[in-house]
Amino acid sequence: MSKELPDIKKDFSSWYTQVVNRAGLADYGPVKGTMVIKPYGFQLWENIRDTFDKMIKETGHVNAYFPLFIPKSFLAKEAEHIEGFAKECAVVTHTRLKASKTEGVVVDPDSRLEEEIIVRPTSETIIWSMYKKWIQSYRDLPVLINQWANVVRWEMRTRLFLRTSEFLWQEGHTAHATSEEAEKETLDILELYRKLAEDYLAVPVYTGLKTESEKFAGAERTYCIEAMMGDKRALQAGTSHNLGQNFAKAFDVRFQTKDNKEELVWATSWGVSTRLIGAVILAHGDEKGLRLPPKIAPIQVVIIPITKNDNQVAEIKEYLAPLLNELRKAEVRFYEDWTNNSPGFKFNEWEMKGVPLRMEIGPRDVKEGKVVLSRRDKIDKLPVFKDDAMKCIKSTLIDIQKCLFKQALDFRNSNTHKVSDYIEFKKIIKEGGFVRCGWDGSIETEAKIKEETKASIRCIPFDENPNGLTCILSGRVAEHEAIFAKAY
Amino acid sequence: MSKELPDIKKDFSSWYTQVVNRAGLADYGPVKGTMVIKPYGFQLWENIRDTFDKMIKETGHVNAYFPLFIPKSFLAKEAEHIEGFAKECAVVTHTRLKASKTEGVVVDPDSRLEEEIIVRPTSETIIWSMYKKWIQSYRDLPVLINQWANVVRWEMRTRLFLRTSEFLWQEGHTAHATSEEAEKETLDILELYRKLAEDYLAVPVYTGLKTESEKFAGAERTYCIEAMMGDKRALQAGTSHNLGQNFAKAFDVRFQTKDNKEELVWATSWGVSTRLIGAVILAHGDEKGLRLPPKIAPIQVVIIPITKNDNQVAEIKEYLAPLLNELRKAEVRFYEDWTNNSPGFKFNEWEMKGVPLRMEIGPRDVKEGKVVLSRRDKIDKLPVFKDDAMKCIKSTLIDIQKCLFKQALDFRNSNTHKVSDYIEFKKIIKEGGFVRCGWDGSIETEAKIKEETKASIRCIPFDENPNGLTCILSGRVAEHEAIFAKAY
Repeated sequence: MSKELPDIKKDFSSWYTQVVNRAGLADYGPVKGTMVIKPYGFQLWENIRDTFDKMIKETGHVNAYFPLFIPKSFLAKEAEHIEGFAKECAVVTHTRLKASKTEGVVVDPDSRLEEEIIVRPTSETIIWSMYKKWIQSYRDLPVLINQWANVVRWEMRTRLFLRTSEFLWQEGHTAHATSEEAEKETLDILELYRKLAEDYLAVPVYTGLKTESEKFAGAERTYCIEAMMGDKRALQAGTSHNLGQNFAKAFDVRFQTKDNKEELVWATSWGVSTRLIGAVILAHGDEKGLRLPPKIAPIQVVIIPITKNDNQVAEIKEYLAPLLNELRKAEVRFYEDWTNNSPGFKFNEWEMKGVPLRMEIGPRDVKEGKVVLSRRDKIDKLPVFKDDAMKCIKSTLIDIQKCLFKQALDFRNSNTHKVSDYIEFKKIIKEGGFVRCGWDGSIETEAKIKEETKASIRCIPFDENPNGLTCILSGRVAEHEAIFAKAY
Repeated sequence: MSKELPDIKKDFSSWYTQVVNRAGLADYGPVKGTMVIKPYGFQLWENIRDTFDKMIKETGHVNAYFPLFIPKSFLAKEAEHIEGFAKECAVVTHTRLKASKTEGVVVDPDSRLEEEIIVRPTSETIIWSMYKKWIQSYRDLPVLINQWANVVRWEMRTRLFLRTSEFLWQEGHTAHATSEEAEKETLDILELYRKLAEDYLAVPVYTGLKTESEKFAGAERTYCIEAMMGDKRALQAGTSHNLGQNFAKAFDVRFQTKDNKEELVWATSWGVSTRLIGAVILAHGDEKGLRLPPKIAPIQVVIIPITKNDNQVAEIKEYLAPLLNELRKAEVRFYEDWTNNSPGFKFNEWEMKGVPLRMEIGPRDVKEGKVVLSRRDKIDKLPVFKDDAMKCIKSTLIDIQKCLFKQALDFRNSNTHKVSDYIEFKKIIKEGGFVRCGWDGSIETEAKIKEETKASIRCIPFDENPNGLTCILSGRVAEHEAIFAKAY
C-alpha cells in the first residue's frame, strides 16, 4: 500500500490494472488471458449475481444448466453465428494423457475424438438442440430459462474483467409462440439490465439498438446498455437479442399452434457478465482506488479502532458491541479491522478497496459517546453520537448510493455532445466523450467513421430524434440519431 | 404420465432412469455423457447449494473463482495426481475454426497451441499455483477458499447425476500453517457434509476414512460420507481430503513462520457435487417416483383445485387467497396447478415429482371450510379446517422431513450386517447390503475381496471397534473394522 497509484487522469490504463491488483479483485491465471477472481472480487460478483437472479425469478424465469461442450457441427448450423465465433473457439480434440519416456506426460494420440468439441463461447446452439426435444406445442411455451455459467472466447488482447478468455455470465434463452412476445421479452430484459446498472451499480446507461454491424452473430436485433467510463470511453455493459426464428430454423424447432398449424418458434437471448465489475471500477474509481456502491459492496462499513494498548482494545470492543449487534440485525455488511497496522495504512487500504463508509473509534470518542464516520465518495468526516450511529449509517449508505450515481450521471451528461460538424466530431472523439449526431444509416458511413476516428456506433438510443438532422459524415438526411464513441 | 414406472424392486436401474426423465430433473446433452440439468432439477441443486454455501460462510470460508483451463504441465507436477486423472482428461489443442471447401467447418491447424490445455477435472494444481503467489507469511494463513464450478472427467459409462462427463460441484481448497490445523479443517468439513446429508437431504451416512487404494489421487488421507441407496448399494456422497504438504511441495509453496523459519504449507481439499441429487433420488424414491425432503424440495406444497366449471374456479381462488398469502409470508414454497388435466393425472404427476405435501380443495371443502392434505411419504389423507391449515402444513413438513430420514435410517441399519464369516459375507454382498467386519489392513486382501465379490471398502468408520475381530478373508487379526459394499 506504500506506493502511489498511477495518475488516474494521465494513465487510466495503468491505474485500472493497479487498482484491480491492489484492491484484491482479480489476478491472471497461468493460461493466457484467463482470470482468477479473488474472494473480494467474487463477493462483488455474488452481490451483482444475486441481485439480478432475484429480478429474473420475480419475472417468471427459471435457472437450468446446459453442458460446457458443444459438438463442432452444432456451432456451424447457424451461418452468422459460426462466422462470428469461429476465430475464438477453444477446441477439445483428445480425452487422455499418458506417460512418455522422453517427454514426461503427453496427449494420448489414441484418444482422438471423432468429432471435435467446442468449449461453449455462448449456448444458443446447444440449448436450441434441447428445445427441439422439449417444445412440441403452444402449451410448452413460453420457455423462460436462464443459466449462470462460464464461457470461453479465445481473445488475443485481454484485460481483467473487461476481456478475458474465460468469463462468468448469465445467459437467458427464451422461446415464444409469437414474434411480438419475443420482442417484448427482449425489451423487458433490457429494462432489467438498465435497472441493475443504474439502481444497483450506480452506473448510468444509454439504452438502444445496435447497428447491423455491431449486433450479435445470429440475432435479428440486438439491444444494449452502454455506459461511459472515467476516461470517457464507452463500455457495452449488457445485451439483449431478438433472435427471430434463426435458431429455430437451424435446429428445426417447430410447435403446434392453438389452431393446429405448425410454426417455427421465436427466440431471445441476453447476457451480462463479470464485465460489470469492470464497469463499476472504471465508472466510479478515483485517485485513491475503488469506490463501490453500497448496494453491491462486499463490505459497506469498515470499522477502524484507534488504539494504543490492550486496555483500549478491550474498552472499544465493549463500547462497540451493542452497535455491531444492531448492524448485524439490520444486515449491514461490516468488517472490523483489528490488525496491528497503523490507522493511516488502514485508511489507505480500505479506501483502495472502495468501502463506502468508514467508522473510526478512539479512546476520546468512547469518552464522548461518539463514533466518527467518513464517506468514501467525498471528503467528509462526521462525528456522531453512538446512539445515532445506526440511523446515520443507514441513511448515509443510501445517500452514497445516490451520490455515486449522480456524479457518474453528471460526468456522462457533460461529456455527451450533440454535434453536427465532422471536425468537431473528430475533436471530441479524440479528446474523449460521446457524440450524438445524425447518421445516414449506411454501413459504409459507419465503417468510414470507425476507420478515421476509431469511434463506433454504441447504439441508436431509444430517445433518438433524427428529425432535421443530417449525417455527420455524408451530409445526407439522417436516418437515425446515433451515439458514437471509442469503446472498450 | 400414463405409463407405469419400471418395478423399483425388480429393475432399480430402469426405474432410476425413468424417474430422472419423467420428474423433469435432467437429460443427456449431445456430447457423450454430458448432462442438461432441467429447471426442476436445478432448483433442487440451488437449494442444496445455498444450504451448504451458508454453512461454509458461517465457518469463515469465502468463495472465489479459478480458471477452467490448466496447463498440461501443472497437472503433471504431483505424481499420484496425474496418475489418477490422466485417463479422463479433456484436452484443448486448438483455438480456431475455419471454413473448408470440402468439409464445411474444420479446426484451423494453424491455431495449434504450444502447450496443450486440460479442462479442469479438479483444481488443486491451478489453485496451488496461485497460492504460491499469495502466501508468503504465517500472516497470510489460513486461506479458506471455496469455489462452485463445473469440472470435466471423461467417463466411459455415465448415468445422470451419478457419473457424467461434466458435473457441477463445490471444491474447497484451504491452506494452513500446521498439520493439526489442516486435519481439523478436513474433519470439520466432513461434519458439515454429514449435516448437509442427514439434516437437509434426509440421507443417513456413515463417516470414516478411505483406504489407501480408495483415497484421492494426491491426498494423505481421504475422509468420506457413505450412504445406502434403495437397492442397498453404497454411494460415496462427499469426500474431504487432508493433502498434507503434497501440493505445497509440487508448487513450492512455503511460508515464513512466526519464529522466522521457512516451511511448506499444509493443505486440504473437499467436494460435494450434483451427485447429491442422485443420492436423494436413490435413497427416498418409491414406486410412484421421487420423494423429496421438504427442506430442499423446490415445491413443498402443491395445490390442486378440483373444479368442474369457471364459477368453481373463481370460488376456490377467492377461498384460497388468504391462506396462500400466509404461505407466501411464511416462505413456504408452493405451486398452484390450475391446468385442465384431470385430478388423477395431476396427483400422479406431482407424486412423480416428489412434492412432499399435496393440498386438494373442491367445492365441498369450500362449503365445509376445509382443505385436504395428503403426504407424499405415506398414505394419509387429512381434511383440516382452512384456519388450521397453515399451522398444520408447517408441522407436517417438519414431520415429513423427519420421517424420510427415519425410514432411510431404519432401512440402512437393517441392511447393515456385522459378519465374521466369508461365506455369509458373500451372500449378503450378493443379495445386497453393507457388511461390517474385520479387515487385516492389507491392500492384497482388499483387492481379492473386490475381485471375488465386487464389494469395496466404503470406509473405516469412525466408530470402528476392531478389538477381537479377525479378517473376514485372511483370518488374521483385524487391523480395522471396515464397511464393505458394492457401490455406485
